[in-house]
Amino acid sequence: MIAAGSAASSLKGRDLLDCQEWTHDEVESTFELAMELKRRFKGGGPQELLKNKTFFMIFYATSTRTRNSFEAALTQLGGHAHYLETKTMRIGDQGAPEEVKDTAKVLDRYGHGIGVRAYTQNYGEGEQLIREYARHAEIPVVSMESDKYHPCQALADMLTIREKFSDWHGKKYVQAWAYSPNARRVPAVPQSNVCLMTRQGMDVVYVRPKEFTLDSKITTQARLNARESGGSFTETDDLKGAFEGADVVYVRNHTTLNYGRDGVEAEQAIIDKYKTWTCSQELMDLTSKKSVFMHCLPADRGHEVTNEVMDGPNSVIYDEAENRLHVQKAVLALVMR
Amino acid sequence: MIAAGSAASSLKGRDLLDCQEWTHDEVESTFELAMELKRRFKGGGPQELLKNKTFFMIFYATSTRTRNSFEAALTQLGGHAHYLETKTMRIGDQGAPEEVKDTAKVLDRYGHGIGVRAYTQNYGEGEQLIREYARHAEIPVVSMESDKYHPCQALADMLTIREKFSDWHGKKYVQAWAYSPNARRVPAVPQSNVCLMTRQGMDVVYVRPKEFTLDSKITTQARLNARESGGSFTETDDLKGAFEGADVVYVRNHTTLNYGRDGVEAEQAIIDKYKTWTCSQELMDLTSKKSVFMHCLPADRGHEVTNEVMDGPNSVIYDEAENRLHVQKAVLALVMR
Amino acid sequence: MIAAGSAASSLKGRDLLDCQEWTHDEVESTFELAMELKRRFKGGGPQELLKNKTFFMIFYATSTRTRNSFEAALTQLGGHAHYLETKTMRIGDQGAPEEVKDTAKVLDRYGHGIGVRAYTQNYGEGEQLIREYARHAEIPVVSMESDKYHPCQALADMLTIREKFSDWHGKKYVQAWAYSPNARRVPAVPQSNVCLMTRQGMDVVYVRPKEFTLDSKITTQARLNARESGGSFTETDDLKGAFEGADVVYVRNHTTLNYGRDGVEAEQAIIDKYKTWTCSQELMDLTSKKSVFMHCLPADRGHEVTNEVMDGPNSVIYDEAENRLHVQKAVLALVMR
Repeated sequence: MIAAGSAASSLKGRDLLDCQEWTHDEVESTFELAMELKRRFKGGGPQELLKNKTFFMIFYATSTRTRNSFEAALTQLGGHAHYLETKTMRIGDQGAPEEVKDTAKVLDRYGHGIGVRAYTQNYGEGEQLIREYARHAEIPVVSMESDKYHPCQALADMLTIREKFSDWHGKKYVQAWAYSPNARRVPAVPQSNVCLMTRQGMDVVYVRPKEFTLDSKITTQARLNARESGGSFTETDDLKGAFEGADVVYVRNHTTLNYGRDGVEAEQAIIDKYKTWTCSQELMDLTSKKSVFMHCLPADRGHEVTNEVMDGPNSVIYDEAENRLHVQKAVLALVMR
Repeated sequence: MIAAGSAASSLKGRDLLDCQEWTHDEVESTFELAMELKRRFKGGGPQELLKNKTFFMIFYATSTRTRNSFEAALTQLGGHAHYLETKTMRIGDQGAPEEVKDTAKVLDRYGHGIGVRAYTQNYGEGEQLIREYARHAEIPVVSMESDKYHPCQALADMLTIREKFSDWHGKKYVQAWAYSPNARRVPAVPQSNVCLMTRQGMDVVYVRPKEFTLDSKITTQARLNARESGGSFTETDDLKGAFEGADVVYVRNHTTLNYGRDGVEAEQAIIDKYKTWTCSQELMDLTSKKSVFMHCLPADRGHEVTNEVMDGPNSVIYDEAENRLHVQKAVLALVMR
Repeated sequence: MIAAGSAASSLKGRDLLDCQEWTHDEVESTFELAMELKRRFKGGGPQELLKNKTFFMIFYATSTRTRNSFEAALTQLGGHAHYLETKTMRIGDQGAPEEVKDTAKVLDRYGHGIGVRAYTQNYGEGEQLIREYARHAEIPVVSMESDKYHPCQALADMLTIREKFSDWHGKKYVQAWAYSPNARRVPAVPQSNVCLMTRQGMDVVYVRPKEFTLDSKITTQARLNARESGGSFTETDDLKGAFEGADVVYVRNHTTLNYGRDGVEAEQAIIDKYKTWTCSQELMDLTSKKSVFMHCLPADRGHEVTNEVMDGPNSVIYDEAENRLHVQKAVLALVMR
């Protein structure tokens, strides 16, 4: 019905937990199909690739974009997504809660794919939980964000960059930590993004106060990716230097990796040292003339970034949010068909 | 596929926040399509006017009829409705909740229409919130009830009256406040209904204890509507007089407009003065022979109205509830196609 | 489109509250259609028997299998199921909650079937509540488990037994109470199962500590069923004796019938006397060579049953969970079409 890339057939039945686990060709096939499905969404062509099929969305946390883009994705593909809050399920029961194994192995029999969003204060726990579902379910499991990875966000972001720049190789991509007194986001987005963007041949700069450095496995991977793709990966705490000549600025608050271990007060003391880390128009003025501003949302307007930037001419925040829909339709169509 | 009235084309992409903002012809087109879709629901004809399309239902409050009639409406039209409780979304987050603007502009990219139900104790706040969604979303926004308006209820009610009376012009429509110790409904239904029913040429009487008068903008509008349509609008506190010769009796408890400002105790003191304001069979006996009893539900049985009246031969409460479904299918098909 | 048994036509519009209320032929027609729909699920044939139709699922309690199997069932049949938590509905309102009658009579107008799960600590209350919905709704009402019956579970379990044994008549079916310090399950599953399995001609043994005996109306019915079918029904507290030579072992914790009246502490004192009532491999070794182990899930692993048994070669727990899907598709297709 719809031709995706030659690597597409290898994706049938596969999980998506971290983009890095998919080959370059598999990622390219996903972009190819996502663009075709986006054209059809706008132009009205047939998209019913998952007719009468079921995707289970298990949420251990709140969501706007993820839930609504997946649920609308299934409707457009002719199937249906279940919105599952864990507290309404037997795994959320008091007394004798069901084990993940049994929940996963049962859903496996009713439908065709499972999405899980899970994170806690303890870095890595959420990822472990998602992988427990994946271990037990034979149907594909798609990460809807853990504390480590947010693969669907990274794919949507890269698709957006490809739409904005005809050649993105060697373009300067800045992943910037940003101040928020209360947001306390997990580091999944910056971690998935620096890995994917280095792999796609971009010159990636990760700028943050020194306490907010990412998982060393991630930065090692990003460096390796850059070497193979011809891109580069740099980490710095020089905010202005990072913004200079940037083609893409991607802003996102996140916690330190020690937050769970050291507690709220220690975390707050660190955060409060960096109240000036707000993405302002002055910073944006240092970037290249055709630069784009990105944020995965939700944004803490006024803290992470000013309204002027969020709503300004460089901002592509709603375009990238929209691409969640199309890239996820492609992912699900490839793994669930 | 289905011919609606000539005014139908002007509705594409439009919001429905208050019936008054739609022209007479647009309202007529809606009734026309609603009746056709109702015939097809009963008879089995095709209704898939919104195939694979998505309608987001954002609820800041509980719901039975609104949620279920909209969700079933989408299924019948071939699309799907998302049931969204704000506490499961990023706008409900602690810490750094997302702003309405970003939520609205993102949903805008995923689907084809947004419904919002919002009201607080402070008269007008809910309406303001719904209009904030409408201002930011390019796709149609439909009010699922604010503290000021409940346009879909008014349309369903008028459709019901049209089904019960071959000529409704000049018929006596009584909107009656009713006692409930605890219901504390917002005045949206009486306000939307006195406006629409005066506009449709009925002789409208709004009967209430003096403290429960409606927003003066509403009563002014109702008078203006009556003048243009050839109907009339009267406000009174004479309950028996109002019921005499009535063709339609519509009962609904609501709070005073000052409830939020003056607080619970002040409100309760006022309510308790009107414990006799229950719609009883004795009152119904004063109405015209073929009169109908209406209530938008949920009803506080035994307080607002006796079981004898609710379940009696004049009652059309379930017919009007059903018409929510058909009128909303028409509204959505007209604005979202 | 799909031929079900000759008795199928009598099921149109019917409720399913207790399998016993359906004739033997009606139950056979359900199994026949379930098997056909299962073949099509695996093989890909058309299943859209309830196109654009709506099934309302009202949950007074948590659920994994029931909610997800019904919701996926509707998707496969071409319709849609609403997931309704009572606390989001008007019947869950503070102040003046809506009565069941009005909720039931309104949903009746919007869709084509209603499912209800309801149980409390007071044995029988949940069943009464479900029957209140059934009394008021003209569309079919399907029990999604009360404190007395779980008809869809019983049908799925019997279908599983029929798949595992070419002739199930005279096979030994053991329904075993099991220890759990905290699970506190209602006795619906054992009650529905001993009734259905005796009716299907099996030799049913219900083994439990004496305090956990079932409703005497149920055991009387089971004895009557056995007499008519040529099967048998025995009740005992001899766990090992029960397991000896068993063909089917079905494990499920449940409370005493007096739990609501006598309170938590009294219940706990009784439970704690039976800590050895765990289904272990040693017990399973007493059963027949080709015996199967069943559990409706969720299981309290380590208390009701060991992991060795749950995950062992005799276990068919996921097969029976899957059959919920297919048997419910058959039930809904027969009653809602």
